[in-house]
Amino acid sequence: MDMTQAMQSVEDLMADTVNSTVTTLRDASHHILEAGGKRIRPRLVLLSYAAMGGNDINQVAPVAAAVELVHTASVVHDDINDHGIVRRGRPSVNAIWGRTFALLTGDFLFTKVYELMAPYKDLNITLAEGTVALVEGETLQASAAKEGKLSREVYYQIIALKTAALFKSGAKLGAQLVNAPAEYTEALGEYGFNIGLAFQITDDILDLIADADQLGKTAGIDLAQGKGLGSAYATNGSSHAAVAEVIEEAPTDDLLTTIKRKVLQGDAIEQGQTQARLLVQQAINALEPLPESAAKDELIELAQQVINRSY
Amino acid sequence: MDMTQAMQSVEDLMADTVNSTVTTLRDASHHILEAGGKRIRPRLVLLSYAAMGGNDINQVAPVAAAVELVHTASVVHDDINDHGIVRRGRPSVNAIWGRTFALLTGDFLFTKVYELMAPYKDLNITLAEGTVALVEGETLQASAAKEGKLSREVYYQIIALKTAALFKSGAKLGAQLVNAPAEYTEALGEYGFNIGLAFQITDDILDLIADADQLGKTAGIDLAQGKGLGSAYATNGSSHAAVAEVIEEAPTDDLLTTIKRKVLQGDAIEQGQTQARLLVQQAINALEPLPESAAKDELIELAQQVINRSY
Repeated sequence: MDMTQAMQSVEDLMADTVNSTVTTLRDASHHILEAGGKRIRPRLVLLSYAAMGGNDINQVAPVAAAVELVHTASVVHDDINDHGIVRRGRPSVNAIWGRTFALLTGDFLFTKVYELMAPYKDLNITLAEGTVALVEGETLQASAAKEGKLSREVYYQIIALKTAALFKSGAKLGAQLVNAPAEYTEALGEYGFNIGLAFQITDDILDLIADADQLGKTAGIDLAQGKGLGSAYATNGSSHAAVAEVIEEAPTDDLLTTIKRKVLQGDAIEQGQTQARLLVQQAINALEPLPESAAKDELIELAQQVINRSY
Repeated sequence: MDMTQAMQSVEDLMADTVNSTVTTLRDASHHILEAGGKRIRPRLVLLSYAAMGGNDINQVAPVAAAVELVHTASVVHDDINDHGIVRRGRPSVNAIWGRTFALLTGDFLFTKVYELMAPYKDLNITLAEGTVALVEGETLQASAAKEGKLSREVYYQIIALKTAALFKSGAKLGAQLVNAPAEYTEALGEYGFNIGLAFQITDDILDLIADADQLGKTAGIDLAQGKGLGSAYATNGSSHAAVAEVIEEAPTDDLLTTIKRKVLQGDAIEQGQTQARLLVQQAINALEPLPESAAKDELIELAQQVINRSY
């Protein structure tokens, strides 16, 4: 299966799927989809599928597109809750169309997934697991931010739900599409889960150390929401009070700088990077039982890309 | 099939389905579900199913629950966009838990539907049609409100999408579950679509003439959003300017009273009631080809209840 061609099919399918006659939904959906993004989740679906011998782009593309649309819906809603004004290097849907239409665009993307996934019966259970977990993780995160309390344990609970679960679902879905043996499906699920954790830790580190231009999204938002890696690792409470103060409003530069400095005083970044490297190694180890293939090699490469990136 | 027992199964299933370990999602979902509501959509699914000879509660309950959860999700999100503080006689999710958690609760309900509908393959297409239309209708409505323009034609386009399409899907789903002949499935779809329109017109009239205690939800909101039946029917523009002024903020009593008086000066109410009665008659006529059954009689009764209600 040619990966470039397969990814192009996923892109085309997503663009087609969101072609509503209601222009706001169509335009807002195309706006966020055309901005790109890393497309790690659909690549994960395609590579798992190929690693298990799948080679029918038409069979796998709707599933890969569904996983990416779930992620895209969550991103659009996230930018409402976090007052994010830049996303993927463009103004967010929220910034251009406002809260009401951003909310409806996210709902539109979530419900378009019903349509895409209709032919896949039980695979909907796997996708539902990742999607429901994503919403649960976002909710735990908002609760932790509101209470101004975020322990390392809660941080891991949050990223497992909000990010790693959908990575796990995506990796399993590729295998389930070709009825791969349970042993391989589980192995791919573990791989997906671990790179999901590593991906999110890396994201949170970048949110701390990069600026908006590099990230392509509003920087410091996660930090201001008290949910970044930094506030989990760096202190036992000293930064949380400061973080809590800015939760309810859009972040201002001064406050952010103060919080950032406090968080960076610890060894949070280093600890996080070490942890992410370990998780990537575990992910690669999980692939051990799989037969050798070009797709397996690409999965190993993908795991490394997840932590070796600057945006 | 015993309808009381079937409806109880739907209630139990909905309550079980939303049992998240994340307490906010669980509590907010139970809060809105326990408030009740008219449960017309799941009754529609059950009665269509029974009218086509279905008699397995376990087969139909998840589909009926899915349709009601889609509606519930949309209601929770609606109250964010409309600043609704009372819903089904209780404070809205938005009023108790705030915007962020209301948004996530709606997302949670939308994504739980993936799980419930997983076993039903192609029926997901029918549900997707109703759900996507619902979101499209809400979007058109918000656009019309924003522009302060709402013609009678656009009003019908909106209610067809935001309400009638899901009624249509619900009625078709019941029939599709037992592989009913296409003729009957289409007849039930037409029935559902027409009572959906009648239901929404009646809702909009009640929003104009009733108060919050009777309605169990914040009254006048639809009006303030420029989307009520009144503003569509009553004038050729004179009320729209006034309506437009209050769109962006929560309605205040004084402005509402003014708008209400202007709208009520026309014969909007009477026209709307006449139209709703015609639609109910069309719905009942559509059932003509169906074989006689207790369920068919109940569908006829349901059509009449849709317009003969005070809340």
